[in-house]
Amino acid sequence: MKVLVNDKIVDRESVAIDMEDRGYQFGDGVYEVVRLYNGQFFTFDEHIDRLYESAAKIELVIPYSKDVLRDLLQSLAKENDIHTGNIYLQVTRGIQIPRNHIIPDDFPLEGVLTASAREVPRNEALFVEGGTAITDEDIRWLRCDIKSISLLGNILAKNKAHRAGALEAILHRGGTVTECSASNVFIVKDGVLLTHAANNLILNGITRQVILDAARKGGVPVEEKEFSLEDLKTADEVFISSTTLEVTPITKVDDTVIGPGSRGPVTKKVHELFEAEIVKACGEFVPVR
Amino acid sequence: MKVLVNDKIVDRESVAIDMEDRGYQFGDGVYEVVRLYNGQFFTFDEHIDRLYESAAKIELVIPYSKDVLRDLLQSLAKENDIHTGNIYLQVTRGIQIPRNHIIPDDFPLEGVLTASAREVPRNEALFVEGGTAITDEDIRWLRCDIKSISLLGNILAKNKAHRAGALEAILHRGGTVTECSASNVFIVKDGVLLTHAANNLILNGITRQVILDAARKGGVPVEEKEFSLEDLKTADEVFISSTTLEVTPITKVDDTVIGPGSRGPVTKKVHELFEAEIVKACGEFVPVR
Repeated sequence: MKVLVNDKIVDRESVAIDMEDRGYQFGDGVYEVVRLYNGQFFTFDEHIDRLYESAAKIELVIPYSKDVLRDLLQSLAKENDIHTGNIYLQVTRGIQIPRNHIIPDDFPLEGVLTASAREVPRNEALFVEGGTAITDEDIRWLRCDIKSISLLGNILAKNKAHRAGALEAILHRGGTVTECSASNVFIVKDGVLLTHAANNLILNGITRQVILDAARKGGVPVEEKEFSLEDLKTADEVFISSTTLEVTPITKVDDTVIGPGSRGPVTKKVHELFEAEIVKACGEFVPVR
Repeated sequence: MKVLVNDKIVDRESVAIDMEDRGYQFGDGVYEVVRLYNGQFFTFDEHIDRLYESAAKIELVIPYSKDVLRDLLQSLAKENDIHTGNIYLQVTRGIQIPRNHIIPDDFPLEGVLTASAREVPRNEALFVEGGTAITDEDIRWLRCDIKSISLLGNILAKNKAHRAGALEAILHRGGTVTECSASNVFIVKDGVLLTHAANNLILNGITRQVILDAARKGGVPVEEKEFSLEDLKTADEVFISSTTLEVTPITKVDDTVIGPGSRGPVTKKVHELFEAEIVKACGEFVPVR
């Protein structure tokens, strides 16, 4: 398997990360997951833009221009012959010896880029049947708008859900639903699509943004505003979204069955609108070779 | 330089961390900084115990017994001939390929231990003269009692302080002081020593605990309870504590000079009591060879 390390595509086995990389000692870095369909990147520019935005928010300098980075990721996808899959990429602030919270003034650190590409098929059964979720207190930091690799809070929530046999943990702060451990969450109430506004408490998912745009254009009323755990559990429909999960119905939250306990009509429509965006960008879904 | 990787002491140059170590991709790990004086570990057991406690809180299994780990760190200190210095050690949840938030059920991950040892002299001038601090909103997660490597919140605060020419950032949640970016904070008010109680909002520093014990035994009244930014700025004395900073006076907070703007009598007494604990454990301070 070939991976990307800085501006070189190399064998996975040859990669050696430094033990004093700030990513390893401080979670000091940012990341993205970009998806390909039919060998074509979907919302590529949006993901690259967000990576630079996350980096700017923590004053981390990405060592390449957007054009160079896109070219590198294109090459990585090609080298690994990705049809329907994900590229994971992260940039850390770089190696600093000895370890010090303080970023040095006197010499610039060089960001360390690593990226890998893997086939990840669309989980079409999940998109129709949906999954279940638990609810959990959102104990993460107050800059969830930064897609950083300091993810322990997300990890704990995700694994709590997994151990409970659920697909996701829907997080709330004092009863107000924010997002999930690794996805955004939407509810449908009286035909209106509701999701938390994009502020410091959530990661403004690219999939979330595509969904909101497509829904508005497709005639589904949308509101970006706070809703409660009570609203969640009494919603007509609930779904979550992410780069890989696309639009995945949530049929049960804790012990509460949502609506009829199966994918609702608005969720179905929103997913169709989302799929249309994929097809527009990457062509009709082609079976994996 | 020799470092510790798992149970082997190896050349620093030979170390290769995996790009899919969960420490590198999720900040999924815990750490400690342990100090030596005169070649002797200070509060060694307390640091080792806390490492295992942090690990237990995130269900991370440290791959060695405490006895084995202590032996490994002793060897590392000896190999590097540490007189007055620090050992930094961290344990991540291990390598997981491909990256996945979910910790696998079907095969146990092996924690990855890395540790390095370096001379770090006591900063005696700082202990007397003190430094300044800024105040900043505490935006970190709600499990600051876990000494995890997901430290981006701490990093941002520390570097904000550094850029302002200050030694530390004193953090507060809605006006209630918690701790600093990499140390605990104490105030003295009418002869009483005050610091935030050890709950989920602060890291219960080993130095903090030694100070509280020594102060109580030394006749300094102590209270572990909340205090406000207002209390902080109108305090008679302010100091911060950490493994390396010991008891460091803060003489100015933002634009407010604290007390007479120099180390106060209680801070001095507390540091002397703390030094007595070091001497008891490690012997009289011997000049570095």
